[in-house]
Amino acid sequence: MTGFVARLRAAWDEQDSLACVGLDPLIERLPAHIAAHASPIFHFNKAIIDATADLVCAYKPQFAHYAACEAEDQLERTIEYIHRAYPGIPVILDAKRGDVGSTAERYAIEAFERYGADAVTVNPYLGGDSLEPFLRFEDKGVLVVCRTSNPGARDLQDLDVGGRKLFAVVAELAATRWNSRGNCLLVVGATYPQELAQIRAITGDMPFLLPGVGAQGADIGAAVAAGQSADGRGLIVSSSRAVIHASSGVDFAAAARAATLLLRDEINAARTRGHAA
Amino acid sequence: MTGFVARLRAAWDEQDSLACVGLDPLIERLPAHIAAHASPIFHFNKAIIDATADLVCAYKPQFAHYAACEAEDQLERTIEYIHRAYPGIPVILDAKRGDVGSTAERYAIEAFERYGADAVTVNPYLGGDSLEPFLRFEDKGVLVVCRTSNPGARDLQDLDVGGRKLFAVVAELAATRWNSRGNCLLVVGATYPQELAQIRAITGDMPFLLPGVGAQGADIGAAVAAGQSADGRGLIVSSSRAVIHASSGVDFAAAARAATLLLRDEINAARTRGHAA
Repeated sequence: MTGFVARLRAAWDEQDSLACVGLDPLIERLPAHIAAHASPIFHFNKAIIDATADLVCAYKPQFAHYAACEAEDQLERTIEYIHRAYPGIPVILDAKRGDVGSTAERYAIEAFERYGADAVTVNPYLGGDSLEPFLRFEDKGVLVVCRTSNPGARDLQDLDVGGRKLFAVVAELAATRWNSRGNCLLVVGATYPQELAQIRAITGDMPFLLPGVGAQGADIGAAVAAGQSADGRGLIVSSSRAVIHASSGVDFAAAARAATLLLRDEINAARTRGHAA
Repeated sequence: MTGFVARLRAAWDEQDSLACVGLDPLIERLPAHIAAHASPIFHFNKAIIDATADLVCAYKPQFAHYAACEAEDQLERTIEYIHRAYPGIPVILDAKRGDVGSTAERYAIEAFERYGADAVTVNPYLGGDSLEPFLRFEDKGVLVVCRTSNPGARDLQDLDVGGRKLFAVVAELAATRWNSRGNCLLVVGATYPQELAQIRAITGDMPFLLPGVGAQGADIGAAVAAGQSADGRGLIVSSSRAVIHASSGVDFAAAARAATLLLRDEINAARTRGHAA
């Protein structure tokens, strides 16, 4: 199997899109006619996926939204459905795992074998050996949280470590040590273009997952301009609530498509391409 | 309901123990006669719990060991069993969650409402606002990972931040900001007594969870001497594999009891008590 980054690049090009839809459904906001299903989250996701699959480079289900309501089976079905119906679109399980060696192995088994995700988000606080059990899955992607978009990110990530901020150290560790198999990526909040540019300068063409567009109010143009790699790719720009809960009526899937289309086009307009667009 | 720390203190005193058994069963190491059960992990845990409940101050199931083998229901049953059979013994769900606001809320619901845990471990990398949705559950405990016992802990936790190491900054944030409701605790690896003493000096009598004894080979006497609070309490000393997989035969529960007894006594021998022992 080709590696995650190669599959991601193929999806970027084939779909002409850097947009990603975050599948983080809030069970209390499901449309009434969907909530009546035996597996409401899965049916909701399936409709969203079918309405947006030609517009995205990836899907990103967020683990807690399933675990909080005992819906692991619906998470499994969602990922399995994407693989079966749209095999060219990778699935990133957003779970931000982080634990020591033997436990990290169990988390890697959970993400890659149980759920069959193509990639998973992880937390760097426990260091390189806590990431290694994930990175060892060479054809899978491991997205290390680097700089997040919440106000509290400053508490640790912005601390000065010998003239650099902690998040820059994480970016450098990712680029120089954790990416020896070419399957390490970073998670960088979309709300801070300056930090994005700094992390891009450290990491070459390493792909970044950019959450925080849509509900979290980032300026997409500024984020793409600052974060893209030299070839106008390099980003997975993810929107969740602004897409999947764009409408709570029977037209929710069409509304999700419209929101994804806008997102894709806004991203593409900001990309600096090597060829005429 | 009394707060988590008050319940923990009561368990320390009533049980005369700072020992905690980590319920991290490796499914491939379950005794053959247990593996045949429909819910083998639950039956395994139940036998371990019944054999050790008079010797411990807490139990600590580790999430990944259930999630990797689709055993969320057995995790639920395990916690429910402890609450029902041994209501004085708090349960710490070791899941090291860490995500931004609205997602953190879902993780808090997962830990405290779905699983009914009394406390949960969390990761500080995303900062104070990522911990707040957990801390808001005032009667629950929130154990923030501070200094871990793995070699990779150095990558971030030991970085110099203006003359102090990053883990010391986390300890100070916990003591000065995150503990306003009295329900913030720390996770500190047992293998580094010097760091333990340093973190104790920063945090007063804040309780610490000390994993890393047993399989990870910490010196229990040194860890307790360095980490205990002024009154000879302050620690939840957790051993997992060395207890629960002490024997893989039909005598596994008795072997777990013997290992827990040794652990409890070794800890108690190292405690400096305010009264004659």
